Amino acid sequence: MVMMNTESVANDPTVNIGIKKFHNGHFADVEDVLAIEEPLEIRLGYGPVGNRNISNISVTMRTPGSDEELAIGFLFTEGIISSLNDISRVEHLFIACRENKQNTILVDLNENAVPRLPEIERSFYTTSSCGVCGKGSIEAIRTVGIPKPAEVELFGIDSVTLFALPERLREAQKVFSKTGGLHACAFFDREGKLLLLREDVGRHNALDKLIGAGLEQRAFLMENTILLLSGRASFELIQKAVMAGIKIVVAVGAPSSLAVELSKEFNVTLIGFMREDRFNVYASPERIIFE
Amino acid sequence: MVMMNTESVANDPTVNIGIKKFHNGHFADVEDVLAIEEPLEIRLGYGPVGNRNISNISVTMRTPGSDEELAIGFLFTEGIISSLNDISRVEHLFIACRENKQNTILVDLNENAVPRLPEIERSFYTTSSCGVCGKGSIEAIRTVGIPKPAEVELFGIDSVTLFALPERLREAQKVFSKTGGLHACAFFDREGKLLLLREDVGRHNALDKLIGAGLEQRAFLMENTILLLSGRASFELIQKAVMAGIKIVVAVGAPSSLAVELSKEFNVTLIGFMREDRFNVYASPERIIFE
Repeated sequence: MVMMNTESVANDPTVNIGIKKFHNGHFADVEDVLAIEEPLEIRLGYGPVGNRNISNISVTMRTPGSDEELAIGFLFTEGIISSLNDISRVEHLFIACRENKQNTILVDLNENAVPRLPEIERSFYTTSSCGVCGKGSIEAIRTVGIPKPAEVELFGIDSVTLFALPERLREAQKVFSKTGGLHACAFFDREGKLLLLREDVGRHNALDKLIGAGLEQRAFLMENTILLLSGRASFELIQKAVMAGIKIVVAVGAPSSLAVELSKEFNVTLIGFMREDRFNVYASPERIIFE
Repeated sequence: MVMMNTESVANDPTVNIGIKKFHNGHFADVEDVLAIEEPLEIRLGYGPVGNRNISNISVTMRTPGSDEELAIGFLFTEGIISSLNDISRVEHLFIACRENKQNTILVDLNENAVPRLPEIERSFYTTSSCGVCGKGSIEAIRTVGIPKPAEVELFGIDSVTLFALPERLREAQKVFSKTGGLHACAFFDREGKLLLLREDVGRHNALDKLIGAGLEQRAFLMENTILLLSGRASFELIQKAVMAGIKIVVAVGAPSSLAVELSKEFNVTLIGFMREDRFNVYASPERIIFE
């Protein structure tokens, strides 16, 4: 796979602007730092030579930077590609953009790779026996080919390690402390060491970037990590974690009902309201070790 | 317009489940309250008698309740319908769902209403001169037919009123205090009186519900209200506010770069980091009055 390093805006995902700050009865003109939000269009190239297709797969509002990881992570967690081996190269396209922005990215698949395209997915989804209900959504994920783990394997994490995670995430979130406006997610190992961190204005983008990076870096197996989410745990985030084989998900905020259901179904340990001295376990508590 | 009152799950958007709470070195089995998250499929019926179309417009993960408002608000803020007058009726469909869930809703348009469908929208979007960049996104909104206000009109709000808003929202958010997991948004009048509040696991859904309710209730003009967001202000939320003619948006959290750009473009007063004694103004501060 060829990765094209064509990112120019990526290094600092923030922008300074002049604002008016109101405090103690006065307006002051000050500089403020904002998280950049811009659209990214993900295009997919596939098919045999001489009969290539280019499909527009998705437009997402994201924080520029780690676009390749975002595109790969999105295609993987949506089940459109099943491995990095499907991809021949990833590059930004410049499409007559006056501002020279890099908001279109093309993921080119190998000739023999067969993408599972959203149209197929959606038509399965809406014709499944149950229309759309929670069960239907979970069923739709299973059909993408995730094997349900037969039993909880012996991969544990101790409570003392868990307590330290939120603070380690905050320390690492330099951008967050600057703008106060970015979601973060990170992989930690079983000893609580930070392996990888990604941020974005959209929490689903942050997780796609993280999983895309996890696929690319191959320095660790995602199923051996602990995934920490800076905010709440929704269905969509657990779905992405399940696709990546992640077994332990820890959220600083609350989980939703369907996030809990999905975690139970796929034996994911789901922890919410992670604080420095307490947490709640919503699914598969067996993986947590404490003295 | 006929509104079908067929909601049964709507009244309490929470569910109780048994969880394990870890604190002081011990697990305790306790009951916890979760925000319900389930998919809602929005279908649109349109066209002349004898040649009606039913299109699947969107599947969104939402908190059940106020589904009609959500569907109407979504169709309106996406520019698919331009007014309530386009709609003949709204009803839930039961599609062979074992669990008898109400996760599909049909919005039937009048025979002569011509919806502006997402396909048309998207193809404009991706063929606009600039591909996808921030400018392109703002351009796409303008083409939906929002007139840019010629100048800032004399509709002001004083700073003392602003300071009181976040606490009033929190007081009103009974569900929020129960689950800690819901986004909220609300309309206030110029004196800071709460007019309408909606919540959802997804912030865009909460705003669609609120705007849908604003359209239906007709008790006030949305352009005369202050919109308060419990979290951050993203492009998508400002876009919806612009579509509804809202002039003042107040966010408890940070805005994104494109949210600020869009607010400036459409003369929306955008306030962020709203606290009890301070706030930041990112666009159109002229509407704020202080002694």
